[in-house]
Amino acid sequence: MAQSFYSHITKFTKLEETEFEAVLPFFKTIKVRKKENLLIEGQVCKTHFFVLEGCLRKFFINNKGVEQTTEFAIENWWLTDNIAYERGLPTEFYIQAVENSVVLVIDKQLQDKLLLEHPKLERYFRFIYQRAFAASQMRIKYLYDFSKEEAYFQLCKNQPEFVQRVPQYLIASFLGFTPEYLSEIRNQKRS
Amino acid sequence: MAQSFYSHITKFTKLEETEFEAVLPFFKTIKVRKKENLLIEGQVCKTHFFVLEGCLRKFFINNKGVEQTTEFAIENWWLTDNIAYERGLPTEFYIQAVENSVVLVIDKQLQDKLLLEHPKLERYFRFIYQRAFAASQMRIKYLYDFSKEEAYFQLCKNQPEFVQRVPQYLIASFLGFTPEYLSEIRNQKRS
Repeated sequence: MAQSFYSHITKFTKLEETEFEAVLPFFKTIKVRKKENLLIEGQVCKTHFFVLEGCLRKFFINNKGVEQTTEFAIENWWLTDNIAYERGLPTEFYIQAVENSVVLVIDKQLQDKLLLEHPKLERYFRFIYQRAFAASQMRIKYLYDFSKEEAYFQLCKNQPEFVQRVPQYLIASFLGFTPEYLSEIRNQKRS
Repeated sequence: MAQSFYSHITKFTKLEETEFEAVLPFFKTIKVRKKENLLIEGQVCKTHFFVLEGCLRKFFINNKGVEQTTEFAIENWWLTDNIAYERGLPTEFYIQAVENSVVLVIDKQLQDKLLLEHPKLERYFRFIYQRAFAASQMRIKYLYDFSKEEAYFQLCKNQPEFVQRVPQYLIASFLGFTPEYLSEIRNQKRS
């Protein structure tokens, strides 16, 4: 299954299979069950996750006590609370499995060491962060520019498989409205 | 003045002065006057900007015809519309000088060439995008979690010099409310 990680790396940078064999021991592979937490609020965030199979989400509990999902990660996506991870701080987020998942895990100290020992991976991570940043900039534009209905329709248009795959109450949590409101919009769309 | 760019690079990666001399010709240095546009909506976004002196902002015109500022860049910050830049697409944004500014400019094709010829800079740009992404993730949390007043007070707390430096109507545009509403909050804060 680590083969899919190798394929992902070589999309962005040249890396021999023999070098990949030296890279892999920096990671642990874990299996998590649906709804299992990989990170909880208040924990020092020391780990970075790469999804081999399944789906994770990141959320925080807002001041009304409601879970607000801010990101999902499916196969070939990285996920962590990046500020807390980089600075070794307690996180304000939870990371939880949406489905039974298989995940590669690396600690911050090991990621730093990995990059020093295998500088070819600087190019890989540069692409990962560059694309994540670009997606996040677009997301900020949508948050300013779109009504809740428009945000939902945009998501259906851009990520149809994702909207099918993830439970509707989590789509609602990602878009910042109640599951009831989402049902209403979906019914309006059908009628 | 390019010296400040060299200092910024060497905060993140080792680079000899002699190698920096080979890097610098990949960039043009331009001077822009306050309110001058560096990028306008509909243009193919081919350039990445690094602020040596001054301040730029990025904004789009929302469906009410109002300028919505999404990012600022002061000294040592990079700025572009990253999705359009990476894919060579027309942009939905404007980039404009907030103050008279001095800016380093690099074209996408040259940035790609630069990274292939000087792979040490992969590490530099990896840090740049990693930090930009982390800041942007935090921004998304604030957009979900904070009322407009809270967002303003948070900005005053985290970036006091920035709030002093940038005109108030642009702070209002960044936070997504009218200048009048910002005046009201500031008056409440004083009283």
